[in-house]
Amino acid sequence: MSDDHVFDFQRQARIGLAEAVLCAGKTPAQIDAIIATAMGNEKRLLLTRLADEVARQLDAPMDYDPLSRTGIVGEADPPAGPAAVAVVTAGTSDLPVAREAVRTLGFYGRAVTEISDVGVAGLWRLLAREEDLRRHACVIAVAGMEGALFSVVAGLVPGLVIAVPTSTGYGVARGGETALHAALTSCAPGVVAVNIDNGYGAASAALRFLAARDR
Amino acid sequence: MSDDHVFDFQRQARIGLAEAVLCAGKTPAQIDAIIATAMGNEKRLLLTRLADEVARQLDAPMDYDPLSRTGIVGEADPPAGPAAVAVVTAGTSDLPVAREAVRTLGFYGRAVTEISDVGVAGLWRLLAREEDLRRHACVIAVAGMEGALFSVVAGLVPGLVIAVPTSTGYGVARGGETALHAALTSCAPGVVAVNIDNGYGAASAALRFLAARDR
Amino acid sequence: MSDDHVFDFQRQARIGLAEAVLCAGKTPAQIDAIIATAMGNEKRLLLTRLADEVARQLDAPMDYDPLSRTGIVGEADPPAGPAAVAVVTAGTSDLPVAREAVRTLGFYGRAVTEISDVGVAGLWRLLAREEDLRRHACVIAVAGMEGALFSVVAGLVPGLVIAVPTSTGYGVARGGETALHAALTSCAPGVVAVNIDNGYGAASAALRFLAARDR
Amino acid sequence: MSDDHVFDFQRQARIGLAEAVLCAGKTPAQIDAIIATAMGNEKRLLLTRLADEVARQLDAPMDYDPLSRTGIVGEADPPAGPAAVAVVTAGTSDLPVAREAVRTLGFYGRAVTEISDVGVAGLWRLLAREEDLRRHACVIAVAGMEGALFSVVAGLVPGLVIAVPTSTGYGVARGGETALHAALTSCAPGVVAVNIDNGYGAASAALRFLAARDR
Amino acid sequence: MSDDHVFDFQRQARIGLAEAVLCAGKTPAQIDAIIATAMGNEKRLLLTRLADEVARQLDAPMDYDPLSRTGIVGEADPPAGPAAVAVVTAGTSDLPVAREAVRTLGFYGRAVTEISDVGVAGLWRLLAREEDLRRHACVIAVAGMEGALFSVVAGLVPGLVIAVPTSTGYGVARGGETALHAALTSCAPGVVAVNIDNGYGAASAALRFLAARDR
Amino acid sequence: MSDDHVFDFQRQARIGLAEAVLCAGKTPAQIDAIIATAMGNEKRLLLTRLADEVARQLDAPMDYDPLSRTGIVGEADPPAGPAAVAVVTAGTSDLPVAREAVRTLGFYGRAVTEISDVGVAGLWRLLAREEDLRRHACVIAVAGMEGALFSVVAGLVPGLVIAVPTSTGYGVARGGETALHAALTSCAPGVVAVNIDNGYGAASAALRFLAARDR
Amino acid sequence: MSDDHVFDFQRQARIGLAEAVLCAGKTPAQIDAIIATAMGNEKRLLLTRLADEVARQLDAPMDYDPLSRTGIVGEADPPAGPAAVAVVTAGTSDLPVAREAVRTLGFYGRAVTEISDVGVAGLWRLLAREEDLRRHACVIAVAGMEGALFSVVAGLVPGLVIAVPTSTGYGVARGGETALHAALTSCAPGVVAVNIDNGYGAASAALRFLAARDR
Amino acid sequence: MSDDHVFDFQRQARIGLAEAVLCAGKTPAQIDAIIATAMGNEKRLLLTRLADEVARQLDAPMDYDPLSRTGIVGEADPPAGPAAVAVVTAGTSDLPVAREAVRTLGFYGRAVTEISDVGVAGLWRLLAREEDLRRHACVIAVAGMEGALFSVVAGLVPGLVIAVPTSTGYGVARGGETALHAALTSCAPGVVAVNIDNGYGAASAALRFLAARDR
Repeated sequence: MSDDHVFDFQRQARIGLAEAVLCAGKTPAQIDAIIATAMGNEKRLLLTRLADEVARQLDAPMDYDPLSRTGIVGEADPPAGPAAVAVVTAGTSDLPVAREAVRTLGFYGRAVTEISDVGVAGLWRLLAREEDLRRHACVIAVAGMEGALFSVVAGLVPGLVIAVPTSTGYGVARGGETALHAALTSCAPGVVAVNIDNGYGAASAALRFLAARDR
Repeated sequence: MSDDHVFDFQRQARIGLAEAVLCAGKTPAQIDAIIATAMGNEKRLLLTRLADEVARQLDAPMDYDPLSRTGIVGEADPPAGPAAVAVVTAGTSDLPVAREAVRTLGFYGRAVTEISDVGVAGLWRLLAREEDLRRHACVIAVAGMEGALFSVVAGLVPGLVIAVPTSTGYGVARGGETALHAALTSCAPGVVAVNIDNGYGAASAALRFLAARDR
Repeated sequence: MSDDHVFDFQRQARIGLAEAVLCAGKTPAQIDAIIATAMGNEKRLLLTRLADEVARQLDAPMDYDPLSRTGIVGEADPPAGPAAVAVVTAGTSDLPVAREAVRTLGFYGRAVTEISDVGVAGLWRLLAREEDLRRHACVIAVAGMEGALFSVVAGLVPGLVIAVPTSTGYGVARGGETALHAALTSCAPGVVAVNIDNGYGAASAALRFLAARDR
Repeated sequence: MSDDHVFDFQRQARIGLAEAVLCAGKTPAQIDAIIATAMGNEKRLLLTRLADEVARQLDAPMDYDPLSRTGIVGEADPPAGPAAVAVVTAGTSDLPVAREAVRTLGFYGRAVTEISDVGVAGLWRLLAREEDLRRHACVIAVAGMEGALFSVVAGLVPGLVIAVPTSTGYGVARGGETALHAALTSCAPGVVAVNIDNGYGAASAALRFLAARDR
Repeated sequence: MSDDHVFDFQRQARIGLAEAVLCAGKTPAQIDAIIATAMGNEKRLLLTRLADEVARQLDAPMDYDPLSRTGIVGEADPPAGPAAVAVVTAGTSDLPVAREAVRTLGFYGRAVTEISDVGVAGLWRLLAREEDLRRHACVIAVAGMEGALFSVVAGLVPGLVIAVPTSTGYGVARGGETALHAALTSCAPGVVAVNIDNGYGAASAALRFLAARDR
Repeated sequence: MSDDHVFDFQRQARIGLAEAVLCAGKTPAQIDAIIATAMGNEKRLLLTRLADEVARQLDAPMDYDPLSRTGIVGEADPPAGPAAVAVVTAGTSDLPVAREAVRTLGFYGRAVTEISDVGVAGLWRLLAREEDLRRHACVIAVAGMEGALFSVVAGLVPGLVIAVPTSTGYGVARGGETALHAALTSCAPGVVAVNIDNGYGAASAALRFLAARDR
Repeated sequence: MSDDHVFDFQRQARIGLAEAVLCAGKTPAQIDAIIATAMGNEKRLLLTRLADEVARQLDAPMDYDPLSRTGIVGEADPPAGPAAVAVVTAGTSDLPVAREAVRTLGFYGRAVTEISDVGVAGLWRLLAREEDLRRHACVIAVAGMEGALFSVVAGLVPGLVIAVPTSTGYGVARGGETALHAALTSCAPGVVAVNIDNGYGAASAALRFLAARDR
Repeated sequence: MSDDHVFDFQRQARIGLAEAVLCAGKTPAQIDAIIATAMGNEKRLLLTRLADEVARQLDAPMDYDPLSRTGIVGEADPPAGPAAVAVVTAGTSDLPVAREAVRTLGFYGRAVTEISDVGVAGLWRLLAREEDLRRHACVIAVAGMEGALFSVVAGLVPGLVIAVPTSTGYGVARGGETALHAALTSCAPGVVAVNIDNGYGAASAALRFLAARDR
């Protein structure tokens, strides 16, 4: 059981998404070693859940974003064309997760429309953006607490709605479980969900969608 | 341990609400005995969760409503004045619970505005009733599944919003738990909740509210 | 609170999906009334979770499928073009849920490739269909128990993978919760999930996807 | 996705409650920015879950209370009239949550009667205050552990009883879930509940109640 | 693996309690066989959770009580002395569980004081029995829903308080779990609990207590 | 809402147990204030869950035990007579909880037999103490993990068995929930349980038992 | 998606275990079809969770056992050699699950020692069989409720101990979850577990073990 | 209750496994004392969950491995013969748990084949090792998140498959519970599981297996 990471180099060719590195629980030395292995074969690498203090200890130069805790080693694809994906958030606390999705999409050269603070307690904020939202093929909705945003958005737009529940809230918010369950039991048809706080996963699904659309 | 029910006859005077009989799990004979005991002291009695087939076997004459499974023995108070309470439902499956609240309010002579099928998937249905809803001192919102109705209503009206989560839905709706947690973690301030499917409880809270207002 | 259902007639125009009728918990009389209301405005109607014995008591003629417990009143759209969506199942017990997805897609004229019994315990069965699966823009994977199928499929194909966990299994399968959680924590990137046993929801998401692709 | 907070300035006019700032998880710089944005439009601002060490780093002058971790920027409404709301606690550990409710009510100029240490293990302490409690239109009961206080209070007083379960306790107290469930399953009719430790929410409900009463 | 039950005949001598037969899930033939085996060695036998329709099919003559679903084969010990144990219930629905405890105590010749319908919503009913309760060495308190009775009783009496949570209630009562957790997190010191609906277990603990006291 | 603690001074006379101070979550200043208030009326005071670093900051002199995190202010009752209570532990990690029970019993002058490391994996260790255990009127069994000790002890001894589940273990030990549930579902009759890690509660129940026995 | 079952005919050669048919939720017609397909390739077939009333409607002749609800079509392997596996049960209610394991082992010609009613409440029953148990290479322990049997057995014997938790019990036994967690947190080293009520799975593991031993 | 640990010295002779010391929650002084007691009777001792900073404070010399947090005092058995056990991991985060298993097997002189990073998202990595894996009598599979590895491995190899779920992952991975449930509900027959992160337990089961095989 060598400690060398066995990279899945065929992944980009096979499913259109390269292996990313989930940095939570890895030491700087381990991450540097994985970067070295990966960059021998790939032209770029995405790192997620990379804490600020860990990022500062890495040898590899990278484009690091502290809000989303993501790092990009090498060159991201240049952004191309109008945004087909909108990322919307209920409140300020949902921004880090939303930004992880934005950064992942940007890594693959996909433009994104970002809309924040449209939680349903002040419904006019969302309704003011309704027409804009309806123009996007895919809406990634990011919300914690009761996750009512998912149903309201999915009742307003025709595009694919990917819900990202966040761990925002306390008590019976249960670290995002209530928002997740709200997404899955939405009264609006066709909402799909990813794991709590998984902005990367939502972006990956959107990338599968966009690649299939573009084929 | 005699099987004679010890009725709390002081309850109406003490808290403004008479003891009601939860009939689930009681036999027709037991319910008839409780009615006899109660009607010796009270001029009327409310029965909840009274199944149709049990109601048919009771000796006491009553006003029975099969949708809400409630029975009223004796005379309900006559309805008085304009409706201070609105009861709104997300969908058809929430009607039995909503009707239990309406019947309880009616038992005490309180008028109610009923608004149904205003789930947020078709938001225009709720927005069309916004002005009407804002005129009520108290809104009882009844919804299952993801319970997004609670937050949207509480963001639109100034009155007291009492959420009644229902067991409508399947899978992670978890028999109403997701809707309950949505009510409790609402991003709109001041939503209060009662137990799942507890239309009687929501009406009781509204009655406490109305009595305090009228004092 | 009249018992007349308030149909969301704007839904098809707004989000591309018409309101469907979830029949669980409704009486034949209620369903017949909703059909009558709906068919005054729509040219067709989809009914889900319609039990065999209830379907037999309905007045309206319909195309009823007992395996998926779905009914179609009026004319479904004619199927068009090659299948962009594949529906795969782990085992025989997952077929009713899978068929609900197939029927929903067919209602909107979308062709489907159906592949059954490809659970990972006999991995060759899935690998034999790998090339076929990779040709589809969207794969709806239907599995209960441990839901390993979701990760294995998503590691093999580039299309959008929508996981439908089913309630197949016992003990800690927990009525589909384990399969749902497996979908959400998949080690393969970009898996999205719908509620347990929600074939209709997965198809609705695929329809949003196809409509966005075709715009 | 600018980091500028989109304030819901219409909220006070719409529902009678201004947007408050939940400070948990925000940096001092973010909070200062929100205060600046808000005070451009509002004459005062309430901040909740504001930790002592964060409060000390803020630029804006404010009235800060460390027990409840609340801050008030600008002028609270002057207190008016006799107290219509009583806030009662079971024990010392429930005081921070109770005080959050008191501060929120005070922010809107509502007088409060505070009664502490009336847990039911020493029932005489509560019974000694029974007459006093009965004079209030609304009682906010704050308790953790088994939450028996909610039922006992609601059996004694005619006013609206709002239960605030707290995270006091250990083991199967489950961070407040047991107290929350006790509130929701109370044998006394008409108890309503807010989320665990949500003193702000209970006060918001009371404010809706008082505003409706006073209209 | 013969189907002959291996009876623990040494149990009475070893721990003072004979093996009882939990009849749930056993066929009449199996129960009759166990009775035959047991009565070859013991002079009496207690059967619990014995449904009415099963009891009617048994060959062995017995004293059967349908409320508690218990049967006694052979001679119970004659009751002796004043009651050292009181069994109190919150409401009518708790009676079957309470009666199971009473029957078990009676099987061993222990007298019991039964007090019913003393739920805390009408506190005067319990306070009226306070002096009586204080005279008993052990109080078995039987309650479902929020289980507030346990804490109030334990705050009033010096004796051992054994809480029996019952499955009375719905929604977040969770089949007795909320009442169980209330017993275990009681603010009154020294409450002990048995499993949900386990009247037999509470009586067994009381019997251990009485035997130790009498040694 | 003054911060002065309202002490339940009648508790010792009423139920035989004085109010103890649960120090978790209280500051040294608060604890010192409570001690001052209490010692004006009582001749001694028990403090539980008192962390070492907090104890060191208190003004009041006390007998502090770091293993059990208990403090005794004033004079404990002198121990009297032979031990009627045995406290047994499954393993070393259960000692702090066991010692809390021992200290509480000692506070009231009750002698205790302590037996440690008798977990059932090495059954001979428990069987070697069987005769000794059988001589005690009450056995407090302290165990985490799977809690098998409770059933084995209760199958061997005639005395009252009080189970104290502990949070020892990881994974599905779930912080003591598995041990708690094991106690409550024991196949040996008459086991009673207290909350997880609640050595104080178990001792309080034993004290109720001993007081009743001695009356 | 044809309804023809895709049998995994390579399974016996690949892993030493043939595909078995879980009959729960299948109609007699479906099961008959699967039998026909299977018996075209295999010389025998095992059916599990086959209800008595379903078995009676099947066309295929089989050896059916109502206690374990298993059917064997074709010829089981003849039993060979001394028993290497012992199957022990805590109580009568665990027999159906135990027998499913025994029947599965017998299907592959493996002899089994069956020992029943050795629950730890009467420990002598198990200790009397200790020497016998120690002679077996593998012990399958079957128990519900608190599952203490697993730890006690694993502390006594050197062989592989496979725990099968059963759904025997009520309340916090939680349908077998408590026994499952007890197995997984056993203080005796090296206990392994299968799903609740999964006698077939335990036998399959034992068969893997025996095949590896015999290679 | 002396603090001297009562060592189970008969354990090696009785079940073939010596008592190991779980160091989590013990102080360096306590661990040193246990080592001293143990080494008076045993020739070696295994310590698990021994944190790096605690290990550095111990007096006893030992072979310490920081990745697995295990220490070996005295002489491990020399490795003998070809590896009968393979330990495979899904990803890098699973290595500490896997290594605990490897170290435990090595302590008893058992050789191990280690295979890492064979998670099913890149299925070719596992298929490349299929033949190698099939040669082992026992495969310990270590995986977190959705735990799909367990089913895929068990569908490929004939040996005993012991699943070790790990706490790798976030959100509904629930600290390893999802992987655990996936192991227990595997569609491949005969998977057995140990507690979350319990590499020691898996190795102990493998040692029981190997000892039984070698007898």
